[in-house]
Amino acid sequence: MLRLHDLNPHVLRTEYAVRGPIVERAQALEAEGRRIIYCNIGNPQALRQRPSTYLRQLLSLVEHPQLMDDPGAARYFPADVIARAHTVLTEQPPGTGAYTQSCGLPFVRRQVAAFIAGRDGIPADAARVILTDGASRAIEMVLLALIAGPHTGIMIPVPQYPLYSAAIALYGGRQMDYAIDEDTNWQLAGDALEHAIGGASESGIRPAAVVVINPGNPTGAVLTYDNIAMIIGFAKRHGIAILADEVYQENVYAEGCRFVSFAKVMHDLGEHDVSLFSFHSVSKGFLGECGHRGGYVECRNVPDDVVAELAKLQSVYLCPNVPGQLAVSVMVAPPRPGEASYASFMAERAAILDGLKARAAQLEQGINAIEGMSLVRPEGAMYGFVRFELPVDPTVDAARLSPEERRRHEAGRDSAYCLALLEETGICVVPGSGFGQRPGTFHFRTTFLPPAEEIEALVERLKAFHERYGRQRTDGVAR
Amino acid sequence: MLRLHDLNPHVLRTEYAVRGPIVERAQALEAEGRRIIYCNIGNPQALRQRPSTYLRQLLSLVEHPQLMDDPGAARYFPADVIARAHTVLTEQPPGTGAYTQSCGLPFVRRQVAAFIAGRDGIPADAARVILTDGASRAIEMVLLALIAGPHTGIMIPVPQYPLYSAAIALYGGRQMDYAIDEDTNWQLAGDALEHAIGGASESGIRPAAVVVINPGNPTGAVLTYDNIAMIIGFAKRHGIAILADEVYQENVYAEGCRFVSFAKVMHDLGEHDVSLFSFHSVSKGFLGECGHRGGYVECRNVPDDVVAELAKLQSVYLCPNVPGQLAVSVMVAPPRPGEASYASFMAERAAILDGLKARAAQLEQGINAIEGMSLVRPEGAMYGFVRFELPVDPTVDAARLSPEERRRHEAGRDSAYCLALLEETGICVVPGSGFGQRPGTFHFRTTFLPPAEEIEALVERLKAFHERYGRQRTDGVAR
Repeated sequence: MLRLHDLNPHVLRTEYAVRGPIVERAQALEAEGRRIIYCNIGNPQALRQRPSTYLRQLLSLVEHPQLMDDPGAARYFPADVIARAHTVLTEQPPGTGAYTQSCGLPFVRRQVAAFIAGRDGIPADAARVILTDGASRAIEMVLLALIAGPHTGIMIPVPQYPLYSAAIALYGGRQMDYAIDEDTNWQLAGDALEHAIGGASESGIRPAAVVVINPGNPTGAVLTYDNIAMIIGFAKRHGIAILADEVYQENVYAEGCRFVSFAKVMHDLGEHDVSLFSFHSVSKGFLGECGHRGGYVECRNVPDDVVAELAKLQSVYLCPNVPGQLAVSVMVAPPRPGEASYASFMAERAAILDGLKARAAQLEQGINAIEGMSLVRPEGAMYGFVRFELPVDPTVDAARLSPEERRRHEAGRDSAYCLALLEETGICVVPGSGFGQRPGTFHFRTTFLPPAEEIEALVERLKAFHERYGRQRTDGVAR
Repeated sequence: MLRLHDLNPHVLRTEYAVRGPIVERAQALEAEGRRIIYCNIGNPQALRQRPSTYLRQLLSLVEHPQLMDDPGAARYFPADVIARAHTVLTEQPPGTGAYTQSCGLPFVRRQVAAFIAGRDGIPADAARVILTDGASRAIEMVLLALIAGPHTGIMIPVPQYPLYSAAIALYGGRQMDYAIDEDTNWQLAGDALEHAIGGASESGIRPAAVVVINPGNPTGAVLTYDNIAMIIGFAKRHGIAILADEVYQENVYAEGCRFVSFAKVMHDLGEHDVSLFSFHSVSKGFLGECGHRGGYVECRNVPDDVVAELAKLQSVYLCPNVPGQLAVSVMVAPPRPGEASYASFMAERAAILDGLKARAAQLEQGINAIEGMSLVRPEGAMYGFVRFELPVDPTVDAARLSPEERRRHEAGRDSAYCLALLEETGICVVPGSGFGQRPGTFHFRTTFLPPAEEIEALVERLKAFHERYGRQRTDGVAR
């Protein structure tokens, strides 16, 4: 029989904390009847966000077009939704049931290009847009193509979204961490990038790309225009590509902050030498359609033959799922002023984004009122990366541990904390070690997606738990 | 800027003929206004097969549950569909919009296990069922886990479905071909397996698994019970796992043939040492829901820790798309006798499967009436692997070529043939070299999914084309 040690060692090494042992324990508790608040993942509709009526009406019609043919049934749908369903079925007569072209439906790829062009005031090419089953699959595909061997370095932020570390491990590349700094509100500094790439060539590493998550996950930080220009300059100097994870581009809440795309800045700079892969998804923003697995990558300054290799990779798995492609279509081409659904679509959108903005502030204030916890205000995205203090562990002299031993020791401590939090309160969060954190600091990531009253309860329970936990550990340590 | 030669060499080496250059050319011709008959791919609904009304009604309601709340709208849906939609939303309250557990919705996994148990009269464990975005992703995942390095051998049939060769190349494993024999109606012989594995250890190859496609793609051959028992014995003797691609299990047409699962035979044999991964999909059978990307893998005789590694791989990409999971649910748990939709569901099913059966026979008779072409009767699946003769090329002495040179030379010839067929007739088929074929033989794969009148036209055009092509080549050769 197959045994664990027969498997691909890269698979064994891969870690993905967002759905790791703590989430498994949460599911087990839930199966026993415990109520769990899943704050571990940006899964808006699981936390009671309502789907976009317009999108769902469209999907409902395209799944079962006979509804449109019956005037009685059709009156349950607005005219613009019916018209759009007809357009979908004209562009793709078999509807949702047939494989599409590997890179997705041509009309949706054109809509994505038009969206980018309209958002940024720059040209965009539909032939360089590839639709995927969620942004995760797009990111995986690009990393698989870029990682030429164990010498290929991919720069990722610390803290990062662990899809990146997982995919790098899985495809046998070399993870190169660059630090983003909590003390400067998680800003990305040029010297941190230079520091991270500094020793690469002596170590036999060939850096291939830098990953930037903007707005940040788990940090919520929003990059400025100048920051982005700096990163592009860095990539150019070192001859590496940029992977711009822009899935939270609609989720910007802080006054004075706005989303600026890498594509826009690159175009403004007249930069034609730096290859850029930018990712977007229907799972975030205000649609929050995680279950539909829709996303795309736009390739810019990427030669045709490289785009063709990505298209080939897509073709092996035939095509992304079609309802997910249609969700992308609605994300990039929402109803327009004058159409029947415009007002209600925009009202739903505003209610969701305003609610998220309010809850980001609510979480920040609540956390910062807890003794021994702090949270940099999330400017965007859906998460707070909460820092918490643990008493010094007198049984271990951290200074005598190797960096890797220390990392593992501290990962054990923040995981134990999050597990205890789950067991005692039913709150499921992800330990900071799953994202990466500065040695000696402890964090967890929580979303602020739950309704306001749950955020309030969450903060209260966190407060009580944290006081208790600190006391217990101190007692334990003292004995 | 990124250049082609910077990329992962495994990616560059990967080939996937089903959607290769000939399909790209077909798409380009179509964009110019040519009518193309896409026989390259098993994409039933693109070839005018109608979707299951029951499944689509269910998806329509689950996408837009307000329809159920309105008695006026609800009367457009049968009572059992409404009841099932309620069940789905009870099991998964956020419906299609939220991430599910990484391995899929627990109730659907239980339905899959119950389906296997009912089909085969054997126990089946929902915890060993993983739902995926189509069977392709399940196959990819298992191969990624099994390929521990360049020494890992994966045995695949020749001819095979090129997902296998593609994924083996992509993850850097070693492809080990075993021949299935056209002269014995594509039967799988034990000595072919032994022959293929014979030289492995001297070559430093560690065989990890044997892939079996039953019913066969591209061959349409259906394995007998004894054949399957023989393969299980082979796998046991050599200590390797079995990947059983059973996505065409509903597509068996020949009198006296029936689908037997590897799980069933393994259970009958009391075999507990051979690890089995069996794959199924909503894209084939009679649902033909390719665009929904639904599938699963069942693991049998696979230790918990290995299943956990597969679950971890799934978790990195969060979860399979939810409408695809619901399509799996309907595939494995169709309406039952007594339910409102039962009769119409079964009638649609019978019409589709009967139609395929008739067209398999129609294609076989048509092809075998063409001088210089032959087709082993497809007992199942959706394809004919048509053999055709080409005049000897006097400019090349095949006997003096290395096996690889000869393969490439002959691949050039069958590709040129298929490209000319496309250009002249608009028929898009896949060259046999994309699947593998015995040296000196030429094939193409065509589906028999198009409606009967198109199959008739296809056969007529093929006949005229083949006569013309042979004449041209002979003339060309003679000059």
